[in-house]
Amino acid sequence: MSESVLMGVDMAERRFITFLSDFGHADDFVGTCHGVMKSIAPEVEIIDITHGVRRHDILQGAIILANTLPYMPPSVILAVVDPGVGGNRKPLAIRTAEDRYLVGPDNGLLSLAAAELGGVVEAVELACSTYSLQEVCKTFEGRDLFAPVTAHISSGVTLDRLGSPLPVAELTTINLPRIETRENEIAAAVVYIDSFGNVQVHLSRMELEGLGAQVGERLEVCHGEESWNVPFVQSFAEVPPEDLLVYEDSYRKIAFSINQGDAARTFQINVGDQLLFRVPE
Amino acid sequence: MSESVLMGVDMAERRFITFLSDFGHADDFVGTCHGVMKSIAPEVEIIDITHGVRRHDILQGAIILANTLPYMPPSVILAVVDPGVGGNRKPLAIRTAEDRYLVGPDNGLLSLAAAELGGVVEAVELACSTYSLQEVCKTFEGRDLFAPVTAHISSGVTLDRLGSPLPVAELTTINLPRIETRENEIAAAVVYIDSFGNVQVHLSRMELEGLGAQVGERLEVCHGEESWNVPFVQSFAEVPPEDLLVYEDSYRKIAFSINQGDAARTFQINVGDQLLFRVPE
Amino acid sequence: MSESVLMGVDMAERRFITFLSDFGHADDFVGTCHGVMKSIAPEVEIIDITHGVRRHDILQGAIILANTLPYMPPSVILAVVDPGVGGNRKPLAIRTAEDRYLVGPDNGLLSLAAAELGGVVEAVELACSTYSLQEVCKTFEGRDLFAPVTAHISSGVTLDRLGSPLPVAELTTINLPRIETRENEIAAAVVYIDSFGNVQVHLSRMELEGLGAQVGERLEVCHGEESWNVPFVQSFAEVPPEDLLVYEDSYRKIAFSINQGDAARTFQINVGDQLLFRVPE
Repeated sequence: MSESVLMGVDMAERRFITFLSDFGHADDFVGTCHGVMKSIAPEVEIIDITHGVRRHDILQGAIILANTLPYMPPSVILAVVDPGVGGNRKPLAIRTAEDRYLVGPDNGLLSLAAAELGGVVEAVELACSTYSLQEVCKTFEGRDLFAPVTAHISSGVTLDRLGSPLPVAELTTINLPRIETRENEIAAAVVYIDSFGNVQVHLSRMELEGLGAQVGERLEVCHGEESWNVPFVQSFAEVPPEDLLVYEDSYRKIAFSINQGDAARTFQINVGDQLLFRVPE
Repeated sequence: MSESVLMGVDMAERRFITFLSDFGHADDFVGTCHGVMKSIAPEVEIIDITHGVRRHDILQGAIILANTLPYMPPSVILAVVDPGVGGNRKPLAIRTAEDRYLVGPDNGLLSLAAAELGGVVEAVELACSTYSLQEVCKTFEGRDLFAPVTAHISSGVTLDRLGSPLPVAELTTINLPRIETRENEIAAAVVYIDSFGNVQVHLSRMELEGLGAQVGERLEVCHGEESWNVPFVQSFAEVPPEDLLVYEDSYRKIAFSINQGDAARTFQINVGDQLLFRVPE
Repeated sequence: MSESVLMGVDMAERRFITFLSDFGHADDFVGTCHGVMKSIAPEVEIIDITHGVRRHDILQGAIILANTLPYMPPSVILAVVDPGVGGNRKPLAIRTAEDRYLVGPDNGLLSLAAAELGGVVEAVELACSTYSLQEVCKTFEGRDLFAPVTAHISSGVTLDRLGSPLPVAELTTINLPRIETRENEIAAAVVYIDSFGNVQVHLSRMELEGLGAQVGERLEVCHGEESWNVPFVQSFAEVPPEDLLVYEDSYRKIAFSINQGDAARTFQINVGDQLLFRVPE
């Protein structure tokens, strides 16, 4: 490769690729993408953020990608949650104001992380090229297009080599659910349920405190017809096992849980549901 | 180690070990094998192809190992799907015409990949030696025999040090299911179901097209008593969500799926079942 | 960092971190801890022992950590199975007589491995410091405290920098279940069930042989009201598929299994249950 091609990503970011998907670990999808990337860029180290995103759940993928960003070293980011694989949605590589690179489908998956990294300043629609695998299979673009392009970016290839420019304004973004505030209550949407059954809503501690809620006091939490009177605490250890709690979780969102239990399963709470938080008068 | 021992695997292949098994991730089996290999060959990098092979499913393991080969960097291959562990089946290390090394049980698991790599030219039955762990436990030869031998091969140890030669003609091979062609129909066996429920049959696109099937047209697909009229397409995005499709999958096999659904579960299709493809006259 | 700080862990151990938890792979917890450690110590290699410890099962975690020790390269050990996260149990870093370092909660999780490594000679209660993340979240100390401290130890930081000394005698230890021997029978507790359904009891081969049991002969195994007459063998291959067997497993504990079956599920055996082994007179 000529010198001039090798000017894209800066040296610190070349060391790592961080990789998120909904591939799971039952199949070879993750391993095969690793193989493709290590074939192209043997020196790069791949950190698997998670491959446990709920299948086709773009919102969850986008949230996890943004949530985990501060904990990852500088890296080129590969993210694949792609229900429209092979269809009209564009395969994408973008560069942000902080000179970070992200690769994935143009379905909003990259948008929250890109915003955290200063916003998109350059975008290309990936094309089959010398930087993809020779034949791009429409049912596994993760392997044939996204993974090889990520590895090439990590080796210093600039975006203009990888496809045709896209107007930044045309990129798909994620609409985070709106928070509805009424007098003494806030309705917020469940955006994530982890494998412990902890229920995360799209609501910050500041927003909840704006309602008058205070750590150490109690809240009413409603889901459909059910409601519970729950302490607003800082850690699980403040309530007995099997008791309910509301707290700011480790990604700085408000969450609703059962200590050593599974709140989502127990109360049949799903992503997309609304939780209502009410401060007793 | 003397110079002469360190002449086996060539330099490019020393960098990586690619590792496939049916160990899953619930136990420490994968991690322990990693530990053993890194203890012996700290510089080697291990790429986990997958550890999600269906327990004891040698055919599935053999197919995935062969399917993923073109996407992996040069490497020493370790594969363990071993229902007969500790029994009569021989523990094996082989070298192929392309000078690639594979380690695993002699039950056919390595045979499809070895054929892709030029065919076996040298084989040894692994023995307890200075290249296995000190005590080989009959219930976990993956850890005590296969993993250490793989790491030693990766460090340059030649096969003749690892056991006694085996006649290549005596190695166990996999019998791929036969394809039965009648006038306007083909019966092919289901060989793989991924975690999305996509149903892969042992049938190539060329074979299906030989029947007169054409991308863009429709086929009849039969499973037991049920049959469906299904479009033969190139990508999921060509049919609406929840619709059926037949397509060439990313490993160049014909597959039957529900877009954003789970065909295997919906129609109770299992590995080993027959699917019948019929071209309407 | 000044020279004097960089004297802790010896060079061989700096290369690897071995990491065990009950985080599973469905969420980003493992990936995020990897990210934190690689941000601090980019050169270190992380070996995932397993993240499949049964949620909150400290005993299982402690046993796996000790069992797998002999198979891992010299390393700094990070272990997180922490039902009391954020509560009164102390966050811990310890050094053993063999100059090995372990990081995790003071709930007994580290105690069996530490004993294998010569016993604890130095312990500190971890404090928020320049060696933790800036803000330690009480619900994810794995990420904010344990992971960064592990990476810093791996980079050579000594324990005295990480918190205040703890008397070694005050550390929590695991009580392994007692073995009850009567005339011609031994009662032992189930301590581990792997994902194959193999049932491991806290009993060594020597203890079983002390009862008069001999490989090649038969034993009576009782669980609650049920009992079976079972051969005591060396490997699965010695009995036909679907037959029962008792054997010394790969971690040198006595185990009870169904060849190519799932003994735990079939007979509803759980961790903590007692199995009775009786030698026929």
